[in-house]
Amino acid sequence: MTVGIVGYGNIGRAALNLTAAFGFDVVGVFTSRYGEVSIQGTNIYPPSALPDMRGDIDCLIMAGGSATDLPVTVPALAPDFNLVDSYDDHARLRGHRDMTDAAARSGGHTAIISAGWDPGLFSLARIIFTSVMPYAAVNTFWGRGVSQGHSQALRSIPGVRYAVQYTVPESDALFLARSGEGGTMSPTETHRRECYIVADESEQGRIEREVRSMPDYFSGYRTDIHFISEELFLREHTALPHRGQVISSGMSGKYRENRECATLSLALSSNPEFTAGVMLASARAALRLHSEGHSGAFTLADIPPAYLLPEDKDPLSLT
Amino acid sequence: MTVGIVGYGNIGRAALNLTAAFGFDVVGVFTSRYGEVSIQGTNIYPPSALPDMRGDIDCLIMAGGSATDLPVTVPALAPDFNLVDSYDDHARLRGHRDMTDAAARSGGHTAIISAGWDPGLFSLARIIFTSVMPYAAVNTFWGRGVSQGHSQALRSIPGVRYAVQYTVPESDALFLARSGEGGTMSPTETHRRECYIVADESEQGRIEREVRSMPDYFSGYRTDIHFISEELFLREHTALPHRGQVISSGMSGKYRENRECATLSLALSSNPEFTAGVMLASARAALRLHSEGHSGAFTLADIPPAYLLPEDKDPLSLT
Repeated sequence: MTVGIVGYGNIGRAALNLTAAFGFDVVGVFTSRYGEVSIQGTNIYPPSALPDMRGDIDCLIMAGGSATDLPVTVPALAPDFNLVDSYDDHARLRGHRDMTDAAARSGGHTAIISAGWDPGLFSLARIIFTSVMPYAAVNTFWGRGVSQGHSQALRSIPGVRYAVQYTVPESDALFLARSGEGGTMSPTETHRRECYIVADESEQGRIEREVRSMPDYFSGYRTDIHFISEELFLREHTALPHRGQVISSGMSGKYRENRECATLSLALSSNPEFTAGVMLASARAALRLHSEGHSGAFTLADIPPAYLLPEDKDPLSLT
Repeated sequence: MTVGIVGYGNIGRAALNLTAAFGFDVVGVFTSRYGEVSIQGTNIYPPSALPDMRGDIDCLIMAGGSATDLPVTVPALAPDFNLVDSYDDHARLRGHRDMTDAAARSGGHTAIISAGWDPGLFSLARIIFTSVMPYAAVNTFWGRGVSQGHSQALRSIPGVRYAVQYTVPESDALFLARSGEGGTMSPTETHRRECYIVADESEQGRIEREVRSMPDYFSGYRTDIHFISEELFLREHTALPHRGQVISSGMSGKYRENRECATLSLALSSNPEFTAGVMLASARAALRLHSEGHSGAFTLADIPPAYLLPEDKDPLSLT
């Protein structure tokens, strides 16, 4: 089975490193930085080479960003290729699904979208916990870890030289969620945002005001802003760790006498690598769905979990 | 949508209490103790009444035991009814699946087997973690909680008046599993067995020897045996709490420089009630598969997780 990796940022690099462990051969990495990038033992092509390589690639790993890249490239490639993405804009997910579904069906191909850890494995946990625990409240916590979207938002402010944003769950909110009392909490109550920024001292006042007033990203959140030296930043803040948990908790039973709590938690020292693992397992499922004649766009919730396994692994042996 | 509940032990009672929350109408409880049992507002029938009620019941909740009951009743009823069981004998699962599959196909019906928390949700966790984390070791821990199979094994020894067995994970083993070093541990290394038994003093020596030599159940395990008074037993040891976790942990990355750990954990003050919740969610999936024309036996790994949701709940809203 062969894959092509489209995009060579953090997730593309992680996917390339993992392909052998998943039993995939890599036809090539497709990047608009063709010419600037070289990778030992791997062919690099410009994205424009893709149409001619349709017959050689069983599945594309779409390793682009959700803001501007995937909404264009995924519907464009879905008619001609099976593909997997980790599209993560919850608010626009339905539109992305519908566009990709129509494109994939038009060419008889299979797309698995939003295959990461959230959306992805955490979506499965929310769906399964909601399904089996009718009286429970389900809450999701992210962090402590690096949000790449929020870090990018900080870096978009003029005068910011380096920046990283850690999402941190509030411990009071975690306590309420575990107690089954977390039903009505909003994200601004459950998380705070910790920013480490390198910038000239003369610019720091303005930058801080711009951060705090940025809608969706920071406005409304408890936001801690630390201006630090470039040296400290490069020493302490360049890794991409992340954690998260989905907590479902409530009282149940005829007289609400029983407590039940289910938790899925992840602790990752490399967020992109775990995401790439979910994408490559989903590529197995995409090929299996395609070989069964299913076309269109699927999320992990639409797929039998056994389809994620390597072909030689019997799901009953793990049941 | 209507269900019939077959068996009225701990799981049958829990299922009956939960049906309204899942949107099911209960046609009746079917029990061989017909005549001894009465439940306000619920019809009770002998199992022999089932064949005549085929047209009234969308799905049966098979709430019997895995040792002697389900292996007989499930294949017998599967040709004529959609059904769900929580069959939990891992060693004989394949045989049960094959028997049930042939029976269900012969009548064009849908069976979902082993739908509990283990096998069931924990099977899904083992399958998904194994699929997406190629370098990780996956370990399962049960407890601290009541094992009904082991408690029943204690009660089968002559002279035992009351008995309960708590399965307890060894903390050293938990530590190794979380560190990604748990790959080669056997169940006898990862758990100990804590027994509380009520028996006459003159019988206790023989009972203890019989417990420690019981193959599969206790032999080979660190087993702590406490003989206690009937009064203490009835005050402290009649609830059925359980806990458990599936831990997948390992080093990953090109140079094995990244740690990743995924955990699914459950803490339940009523084990049978959580199991009944998984079964009722699976009944939704069985009806959906049946309405799509699928017949045969399925485990949760064979089913899109979205099928577990209530019909009016959009999986994309939880993705």
